[in-house]
Amino acid sequence: MDPESPRVGRPRRSSPVMLEEAAAELFLEQGYDRTTIDQISARAGVARTTFFNYFTTKGDVLWVELDAAIPRLREALEAVDPGSRAFDALEVALRSTAAEVPAARVPWAVAHRALMGTGPELASSGLTRFLAIVDVITRFLARREPALEPDEARAAAAAIAGGAMAGAGAWIEAGTARGPLADALSAGVRPVLDGWSTALRRRTAGGERAR
Amino acid sequence: MDPESPRVGRPRRSSPVMLEEAAAELFLEQGYDRTTIDQISARAGVARTTFFNYFTTKGDVLWVELDAAIPRLREALEAVDPGSRAFDALEVALRSTAAEVPAARVPWAVAHRALMGTGPELASSGLTRFLAIVDVITRFLARREPALEPDEARAAAAAIAGGAMAGAGAWIEAGTARGPLADALSAGVRPVLDGWSTALRRRTAGGERAR
Repeated sequence: MDPESPRVGRPRRSSPVMLEEAAAELFLEQGYDRTTIDQISARAGVARTTFFNYFTTKGDVLWVELDAAIPRLREALEAVDPGSRAFDALEVALRSTAAEVPAARVPWAVAHRALMGTGPELASSGLTRFLAIVDVITRFLARREPALEPDEARAAAAAIAGGAMAGAGAWIEAGTARGPLADALSAGVRPVLDGWSTALRRRTAGGERAR
Repeated sequence: MDPESPRVGRPRRSSPVMLEEAAAELFLEQGYDRTTIDQISARAGVARTTFFNYFTTKGDVLWVELDAAIPRLREALEAVDPGSRAFDALEVALRSTAAEVPAARVPWAVAHRALMGTGPELASSGLTRFLAIVDVITRFLARREPALEPDEARAAAAAIAGGAMAGAGAWIEAGTARGPLADALSAGVRPVLDGWSTALRRRTAGGERAR
């Protein structure tokens, strides 16, 4: 994460974390729109080129947690017990991905969007992330449930991602009384997983098989 | 829709339709990014101010069908039989909203996004539409299913909207062999509606009631 740490020989926060903290401070002080990448880099005490080692656009700073969670979800799905049912395995993978996000580590760009003016950027850069999650889940379902048509795998994945997004949103809005993110995700996706699981079981019981 | 029609005394396409067609032509010819609102207005044979009577940004031209469908969905949900079950009524309302979109009227900005270069704008302006649909469904569920907690109504709505989005996407991608949009939406949402309906029925049967 931070190739400089071993060289300076003392514990320090990594550059992306410092950049994220600097960005959050500046967005709070003067708003998202009026903050430049140069200002963020200067506040973090790094060169502008360092910013671009970790982020492609200013908006990417808003999505550090989620952008790190998407590959973790993919890896968790690759690691699930091959004997488990796909829709149950999905909940396990979502929960284990969420378990690495402590309750205190709420996405600041979402939680403080009104104060920071991050709302429009979140709206314009959020769908790409949502669709990346849908893709990860679609590929998992297509691999693990051959009885699902490709369109069905994608529909199930989009509904699961929608439920998970709402669960995460509720968790963010819950304030300091919030419980674990994993429970909020489960609450958002469980009925969807059950619904698709039942639909699939009915079909295979009825002898109808796709492909 | 077009206040000028009665005055000129002959059937003609309305201004928003002409603007949309002019925009589609120009995006195909020269790409989304290189097309200006002035060019769209000129091609449609209307004043620039006319464009702003119907659209706020250039990107709004990409969403004519969906932006018209969202209030129709809200009205359809307000008109559903009060005796019907909420999750069944949702499918009826989605289908009746979709029934007004003929199979030949596929959203061109999505179907031809590679040729037109509309992909990035669709990605950046799509989430706002998605969340508007989630809001419409959330309000309906909160009103019709008091046993659902507010977070649950939103989670169900987000999953339903996700399934509907995937269904609509499959319908767009299906090419000229596509069937009715209503059937594609049903395929996307039915297992989600069943899953939430079952979860709710179990709860009320178990005597647990929220609020």
